[in-house]
Amino acid sequence: MLKKIFRKISAPVGGEHQDSAEGSQSADMAAELLIAPTALMQLTLEDARVVVRYMQPQKITKGTTFIREGDDRDTGFMLLVIDGEATVETVVVSRVEPITITVLGPGSVIGELGLIDGQARYATCTAATPIRCAILTREALHLLMEENPAVAAKLILALSARIGVRLREITGKLKMYVQLTQAMEQEIGSRPAA
Amino acid sequence: MLKKIFRKISAPVGGEHQDSAEGSQSADMAAELLIAPTALMQLTLEDARVVVRYMQPQKITKGTTFIREGDDRDTGFMLLVIDGEATVETVVVSRVEPITITVLGPGSVIGELGLIDGQARYATCTAATPIRCAILTREALHLLMEENPAVAAKLILALSARIGVRLREITGKLKMYVQLTQAMEQEIGSRPAA
Repeated sequence: MLKKIFRKISAPVGGEHQDSAEGSQSADMAAELLIAPTALMQLTLEDARVVVRYMQPQKITKGTTFIREGDDRDTGFMLLVIDGEATVETVVVSRVEPITITVLGPGSVIGELGLIDGQARYATCTAATPIRCAILTREALHLLMEENPAVAAKLILALSARIGVRLREITGKLKMYVQLTQAMEQEIGSRPAA
Repeated sequence: MLKKIFRKISAPVGGEHQDSAEGSQSADMAAELLIAPTALMQLTLEDARVVVRYMQPQKITKGTTFIREGDDRDTGFMLLVIDGEATVETVVVSRVEPITITVLGPGSVIGELGLIDGQARYATCTAATPIRCAILTREALHLLMEENPAVAAKLILALSARIGVRLREITGKLKMYVQLTQAMEQEIGSRPAA
């Protein structure tokens, strides 16, 4: 299966290919990381092993930006970090300097939002160190949905729960900012103009 | 199937039951609404007919609050509005009065976030008129995943794309508020204290 995908799908990410095979040590590690609390702990190890068969191993060289905020063409993959770290940055409207949101290490899933909804990339991700990862392309996800729909349904449910967590976090932040601007409005209203 | 769910699952929502059967006019209408642009247009009509077999028809009386923000017990269902309107409200931190976010009519899906991630309800939904709807419980979703995993995978993918859209919208708002507070900080900094 891995070979099949390897032949069918060209690598969506810059960097060297790392050859691997189903059942290899690397695939086992990927399956174990896929069910880590930082990734998709709702899956069983057996499910994760099925998913990993649809993923491509990939190396990303340090400094490579492999997902770019606002990019609406290259949205067709997510990746699981096996080794190394990525910084996630976003550009706040009218700011030039991006803000680092987080640094993600082994067991992190990156890019699932673009994979799911195919819309423009949400943030910019850059390899802070050399990264070894496993990539799931949209084409491979559709193949998984055809060939192993039960595992696909569980995978997508787990990914959407992750997106849900992010929606709840961002909404919490938004509420804080709404409150903050209300307080600042009062502050501005209570002072004389300069 | 509908009967089976009817027997197995007690109604999660206050209001009268409306008896319906697979292939009825009401089920057809529900299937057509389920693939409307406001709901899950990624599904085919055939997929939607399968999903509807796992949904329960339900009536909600005007004025009934059927989802309550912060409720972390009653998260096990989403609904498709067939007829009528619901208001969606949220309480901003430290405010007493809730803010109406939106009013949802026929063809709207409500409560999918709680269904997917099982976390506390995100907003409060109240019937602004009498509502006829079709409910999908978590139990029924799991049954769909077992019995029709391919349709389940497509349904969950469509639901997570909806959650993704909301995440992107809220993030856009958050960025605007971040910018606004920066401008207000400057405004406050440039004025003498009262």
